[in-house]
Amino acid sequence: MKPTAVMLLHCPDKPGIISEVTKFITDNKGNIVYLDQYVDREDGMFFMRIEWELEKFLIPRDKIQEYVETLYCRRYQMTFNLYFNDERPRMAIFVSKMSHCLYDLLARYKAGEWNVDIPCIVSNHEDLRYIAEQFDIPYHVWSIKKDHSNKAEVEAAEMELLKKERVTFIVLARYMQIVSDDLIKEYPHHIINIHHSFLPAFIGARPYHQAWERGVKIIGATSHYVTADLDAGPIIEQDVMRVSHKDTPESLVLKGKDLEKIVLSRAVTKHIQRKILTYNNKTIIFS
Amino acid sequence: MKPTAVMLLHCPDKPGIISEVTKFITDNKGNIVYLDQYVDREDGMFFMRIEWELEKFLIPRDKIQEYVETLYCRRYQMTFNLYFNDERPRMAIFVSKMSHCLYDLLARYKAGEWNVDIPCIVSNHEDLRYIAEQFDIPYHVWSIKKDHSNKAEVEAAEMELLKKERVTFIVLARYMQIVSDDLIKEYPHHIINIHHSFLPAFIGARPYHQAWERGVKIIGATSHYVTADLDAGPIIEQDVMRVSHKDTPESLVLKGKDLEKIVLSRAVTKHIQRKILTYNNKTIIFS
Amino acid sequence: MKPTAVMLLHCPDKPGIISEVTKFITDNKGNIVYLDQYVDREDGMFFMRIEWELEKFLIPRDKIQEYVETLYCRRYQMTFNLYFNDERPRMAIFVSKMSHCLYDLLARYKAGEWNVDIPCIVSNHEDLRYIAEQFDIPYHVWSIKKDHSNKAEVEAAEMELLKKERVTFIVLARYMQIVSDDLIKEYPHHIINIHHSFLPAFIGARPYHQAWERGVKIIGATSHYVTADLDAGPIIEQDVMRVSHKDTPESLVLKGKDLEKIVLSRAVTKHIQRKILTYNNKTIIFS
Amino acid sequence: MKPTAVMLLHCPDKPGIISEVTKFITDNKGNIVYLDQYVDREDGMFFMRIEWELEKFLIPRDKIQEYVETLYCRRYQMTFNLYFNDERPRMAIFVSKMSHCLYDLLARYKAGEWNVDIPCIVSNHEDLRYIAEQFDIPYHVWSIKKDHSNKAEVEAAEMELLKKERVTFIVLARYMQIVSDDLIKEYPHHIINIHHSFLPAFIGARPYHQAWERGVKIIGATSHYVTADLDAGPIIEQDVMRVSHKDTPESLVLKGKDLEKIVLSRAVTKHIQRKILTYNNKTIIFS
Repeated sequence: MKPTAVMLLHCPDKPGIISEVTKFITDNKGNIVYLDQYVDREDGMFFMRIEWELEKFLIPRDKIQEYVETLYCRRYQMTFNLYFNDERPRMAIFVSKMSHCLYDLLARYKAGEWNVDIPCIVSNHEDLRYIAEQFDIPYHVWSIKKDHSNKAEVEAAEMELLKKERVTFIVLARYMQIVSDDLIKEYPHHIINIHHSFLPAFIGARPYHQAWERGVKIIGATSHYVTADLDAGPIIEQDVMRVSHKDTPESLVLKGKDLEKIVLSRAVTKHIQRKILTYNNKTIIFS
Repeated sequence: MKPTAVMLLHCPDKPGIISEVTKFITDNKGNIVYLDQYVDREDGMFFMRIEWELEKFLIPRDKIQEYVETLYCRRYQMTFNLYFNDERPRMAIFVSKMSHCLYDLLARYKAGEWNVDIPCIVSNHEDLRYIAEQFDIPYHVWSIKKDHSNKAEVEAAEMELLKKERVTFIVLARYMQIVSDDLIKEYPHHIINIHHSFLPAFIGARPYHQAWERGVKIIGATSHYVTADLDAGPIIEQDVMRVSHKDTPESLVLKGKDLEKIVLSRAVTKHIQRKILTYNNKTIIFS
Repeated sequence: MKPTAVMLLHCPDKPGIISEVTKFITDNKGNIVYLDQYVDREDGMFFMRIEWELEKFLIPRDKIQEYVETLYCRRYQMTFNLYFNDERPRMAIFVSKMSHCLYDLLARYKAGEWNVDIPCIVSNHEDLRYIAEQFDIPYHVWSIKKDHSNKAEVEAAEMELLKKERVTFIVLARYMQIVSDDLIKEYPHHIINIHHSFLPAFIGARPYHQAWERGVKIIGATSHYVTADLDAGPIIEQDVMRVSHKDTPESLVLKGKDLEKIVLSRAVTKHIQRKILTYNNKTIIFS
Repeated sequence: MKPTAVMLLHCPDKPGIISEVTKFITDNKGNIVYLDQYVDREDGMFFMRIEWELEKFLIPRDKIQEYVETLYCRRYQMTFNLYFNDERPRMAIFVSKMSHCLYDLLARYKAGEWNVDIPCIVSNHEDLRYIAEQFDIPYHVWSIKKDHSNKAEVEAAEMELLKKERVTFIVLARYMQIVSDDLIKEYPHHIINIHHSFLPAFIGARPYHQAWERGVKIIGATSHYVTADLDAGPIIEQDVMRVSHKDTPESLVLKGKDLEKIVLSRAVTKHIQRKILTYNNKTIIFS
């Protein structure tokens, strides 16, 4: 894997942006290996993901940020994020008692599917420690009391851990707790949740039971970035499967597990690949 | 097509029901051509659809209802509906201005896919009269005033038409009016609507715009029986398709049309085949 | 609808192509309303679809072809096609005896979904003349004899009609004849077929019976451009649906009809929108 | 979990079979907890899965086989299989180098989703031993030489192991070897394979590359029972996902992994639940 830079940018749409940016990169001997762009014609906004090899790039990697800012940010009112493929994102996984999503994440990690580090798993229960041990990943448990009296304290400890481990994003792999606003502020659009319904249907608790009550013929799962509003953050990925009157709440729960883990892992894949841009509480997912 | 009787029944689950009913039919020389049953073990309810040829059946068709009542209804607390395949259901179609569902219904009808009669099309607009004329079906227009001052009058006229035409069920093929409680009472679980969202998400008006606002990655359509609660009746069929950030509300509307017409026609097919049983605001759909 | 030009181009990938082409258009006061590009990194090929408003464009529309050729074709080894959205494609429909695809095409046409003209319907049978008459479209029948002795003659007559009607592309809407190589040569990658299987499975005759024999759990339909090799041309669109052991060949045929018409119409939509580029017997479908 | 008996049977369709069998069970105080039946009207064959609680059943479990044989087999030309839910099937997993299916199987096993024992994992490579160790399952490696000179020997050793471990069925979890006819004969319709294409398209090696070459818009995976004909055994389950011209053979391989593991695990689930009946090289999958 050759070192590359990835830039995700958006700005008001104007003629010449693509040509300027690509010219800037190629003039400086960067070999572009990916370019995808999208124009929201309603809002007049331009979005782009561009990736180029750094090998012969004339600008040192620690100067690129500055150059792009100077050249384009004011002129195009451009907002951008810059990443390097050899600076791996660091992912924390939060779990409760269900193992299917955790196994799916760790199996991909172990198989080398993802360019990511996983320095820690956090939980409010001991139940899944054996899995963390199977994969040699530190497992941290903080029990939150039923009256939530120690919640602030727990979150402070968690935050310290995340900082210490230089975690860049968090995956809630069926973590059955609501995360605090402080944590959300610290990781804006960097906490990925899996909700076990086809949002916005069946927000909140026990969605499969709600789905069964309503008699739906299709169930779904939704991965989204966590915001302060419950189950209302930008949707990253959804998928569905057919069910019938023969299903019980229990069989929906069981079938839904496959949806949940696949939908969550697809979202995590896109996040690790830096292919997601959020705008107006929606996501732009580059190909 | 040989004449057959179709019986849809349900009762508390008890040993021996299938054997009793099948024995009753075969002892009387009825050749069973279809049997599908389902037990809801949670509620302890038994559901069955059975169909048999009448050719050599020893009980005259106008006595079957009585026999079944006498033999089973009290004993098994059984509720049942009896149909004959040569007594075609009579379907009224209600439309407003969009043609895609209407064309899909009439194309199937004309191609002989359905064992159904369509004696009339009802609308609150003149727009689709040309389609009714293409297919030689009477088209009745009653405009409802904006202040709804003539709504009762219009519905009385509609009801008279439905009675005169011996309509057995109604299909709302993107009919953009809320039907009255009186009409619903007259046709309980016999009015099929198509809602252009994956219910229960996006109830009410402009669901594609709601879906676009929310940034969903999948859109859907839902056909259901109309009840007094808006978009809350028993779901018959649903389907979905993938969309992306590149879609606009307009492209969702356009893509959704294909979902709507297919989902509606599938529901109508099942209804015409007498393969739907409703129970507890849900449907049991026989294969 | 404002007049626009659409250009579909491909060439070996080189830095600067997007910027050159977009600069050429914007410098000449063309307002770009669509741009989508794709790079095949394996083959090193660049593909683009670009559309711009002609209103204030400084180059007269009948000179654009020449300009693009002069400026880019040799320099970039570029191949391109130029279209104008107010020069509607002219579509001929070929049918045999099944009506579902024809109805679906004509219902969209009549509803104004498509920017297309349909000057004629061609068939080897009289069966669907009533539909052509419903929609006031000339219907031409040439019966091909069982010994195919008049096939050359029939095709000459068809070709004459297509020329006279200035047909730009042909849709085989379940036309159960193999079209001649001469016709294919006249309309290279401009004849769209719908094959009633998930290609390349079940090539040739009676694919639903083949599918039933094989016991598949999913059936499909495939629309593709016709080439000299049977069912082997570039695939435009596919879709599938679940089936089960309960299905018969007949029920597969019936269910498959919905797939066929939707898949065919989606392909036709993309073709009419000039969003398909063919390369190496595959399609690039712009969004 | 109360002990139950499961019977899978088929015979020529005749009136009275359901009633006879259900009467036999209920007369002997067996509480029926599951009944699903299906009639193939073309072949005139009847298929049924029935499950009942043994707790108060008057016939001892080791006599049931004999009773059913005596009462029904000759009279109805019935073929049947009898299972007890507390006699867990014993599953051997065969793997090569890819881990995704193995992890998916073991994660379900460990989570208690399946009523199964896994006494051994067999491979021709050392690569996945670490996973077997993570889950504490014996891992047996027999390398097959490139010239296949030791193939018979290896298979004899495998067979001995399978016998010793009382394995009742085998799962080929991306096992990249063709199993011998002897093994197939020993486990008729009891070896489940996952083929990484939508069969019967792309039989044999490198199906994703074949799919990419052909330019399909949808890829699939197929689980089937292994028979002597390559990739031609009874299909148990299939699923698909959309791809596009942007996919490379490598991205298809990666995306396909999710399909493979889910489709394989669904097939294994149905097998463990004794819900699959094979007939005429097809499967009947009970709900």
